Amino acid sequence: MTHRTLFVTGGARSGKSSHALAQAEASGLSPVFIATAQAGDPEMAARIDRHRDERGPQWTTIECPVAIAALIAAQADPSKILLIDCLTLWTSNLIFGMHDVVEETARLAAAIQVAKGPLIFVTNEVGLGIVPDNALAREFRDAAGRVNQSVAAACTEAVMSVSGLLLRLK
Amino acid sequence: MTHRTLFVTGGARSGKSSHALAQAEASGLSPVFIATAQAGDPEMAARIDRHRDERGPQWTTIECPVAIAALIAAQADPSKILLIDCLTLWTSNLIFGMHDVVEETARLAAAIQVAKGPLIFVTNEVGLGIVPDNALAREFRDAAGRVNQSVAAACTEAVMSVSGLLLRLK
Amino acid sequence: MTHRTLFVTGGARSGKSSHALAQAEASGLSPVFIATAQAGDPEMAARIDRHRDERGPQWTTIECPVAIAALIAAQADPSKILLIDCLTLWTSNLIFGMHDVVEETARLAAAIQVAKGPLIFVTNEVGLGIVPDNALAREFRDAAGRVNQSVAAACTEAVMSVSGLLLRLK
Repeated sequence: MTHRTLFVTGGARSGKSSHALAQAEASGLSPVFIATAQAGDPEMAARIDRHRDERGPQWTTIECPVAIAALIAAQADPSKILLIDCLTLWTSNLIFGMHDVVEETARLAAAIQVAKGPLIFVTNEVGLGIVPDNALAREFRDAAGRVNQSVAAACTEAVMSVSGLLLRLK
Repeated sequence: MTHRTLFVTGGARSGKSSHALAQAEASGLSPVFIATAQAGDPEMAARIDRHRDERGPQWTTIECPVAIAALIAAQADPSKILLIDCLTLWTSNLIFGMHDVVEETARLAAAIQVAKGPLIFVTNEVGLGIVPDNALAREFRDAAGRVNQSVAAACTEAVMSVSGLLLRLK
Repeated sequence: MTHRTLFVTGGARSGKSSHALAQAEASGLSPVFIATAQAGDPEMAARIDRHRDERGPQWTTIECPVAIAALIAAQADPSKILLIDCLTLWTSNLIFGMHDVVEETARLAAAIQVAKGPLIFVTNEVGLGIVPDNALAREFRDAAGRVNQSVAAACTEAVMSVSGLLLRLK
């Protein structure tokens, strides 16, 4: 049986996380928030705390900066829906942690295709501006784009959020 | 009675202003251009003058860097259509003028919903590139995204212009 | 007789070149790759070599940094399909080579409309991030946007690739 696997992409403050949260809450299942963010600086720590406070008490939060494929593979409880937010920070965590992005992405795509429950992924489009000046930013941008392509291909549905409204990709 | 309120977003030089101008001129009403731009430097001054020259003589221009909600609320002439260009500069004006962006955005959304005539908004998508290095740019990007979400939600129609072609959002 | 002329836009690593290559190969014609890239630095040289290796042996490659309008006008072999990749680098080559972007773009649009065989263009959306700090980047961004509008208008079909999935523009 194939479960619904939804890919939600968009720009910064485009409403993508709100849409993903609403979809998870509307599922009638127990929502689990898989946070890839790490509180590396005060700005990010404040952002993480604010987001956690905004989610309702029905949410469980798991911090998982890297091992989301393993976490998806281990999830077999039919009463749960996982929301992974977001793939862009996950890509960044892979690069800074010296992981093999291609290998980890293949592992994630494989896990999605055999998932035993519904999944929602949030990610960012980061490649629609001017080419960045520095090589690391270009490497990150390329990696983030490839991760998005792989995960979108593995999911059953995909949308892009623009100004809080949705464009259907798949 | 609800009037047509159109939200036109897109990237730089994507054809969004051209589409908005054409829609205003096709309305058969007297078009009023509400310019949020301020001629703070010679490059911007030249851009403003060029744009004004490109619009036909049927246009009236009003410079309004901040108080567009009040201007919309005060407009009760059924022979006019207002084109506000653009919300991104308006957001920038709010931040630099130390206004409360959340409060002003709520005021604008409320004014749109009780407008006594048709409105067209032009705005930019600015959140689809790499995360900016500096905190002020990130704050601006977040604010611009939130303004877009609020105004798009308040309008009756929304489109995104890409390479001069339109994607319907709503 | 009008031939199919396809415009494929998108962000970095959004799948636009893959889509263009697949469309050219599915045409049943002999595909010709018109490369606008120039190997100005080792990173770009490596990228060009890698892309050439990834294309199959059925492809012919022509390096053409600027004169694509003349090349399209000269192509009268009904057994060929041309894939021009990409217009963004072409715009950059025009600016750095001190060519008149407006004039060259008009020439290209005219050549597309009288092309004697099918064409596929790949380009980038570069105007959906924060306004760049420096004037040259802003000039380039504006020029790239105008080129995209002109070429998209001249083509019979247009799509935008997002996370490897397609939005139809035209």
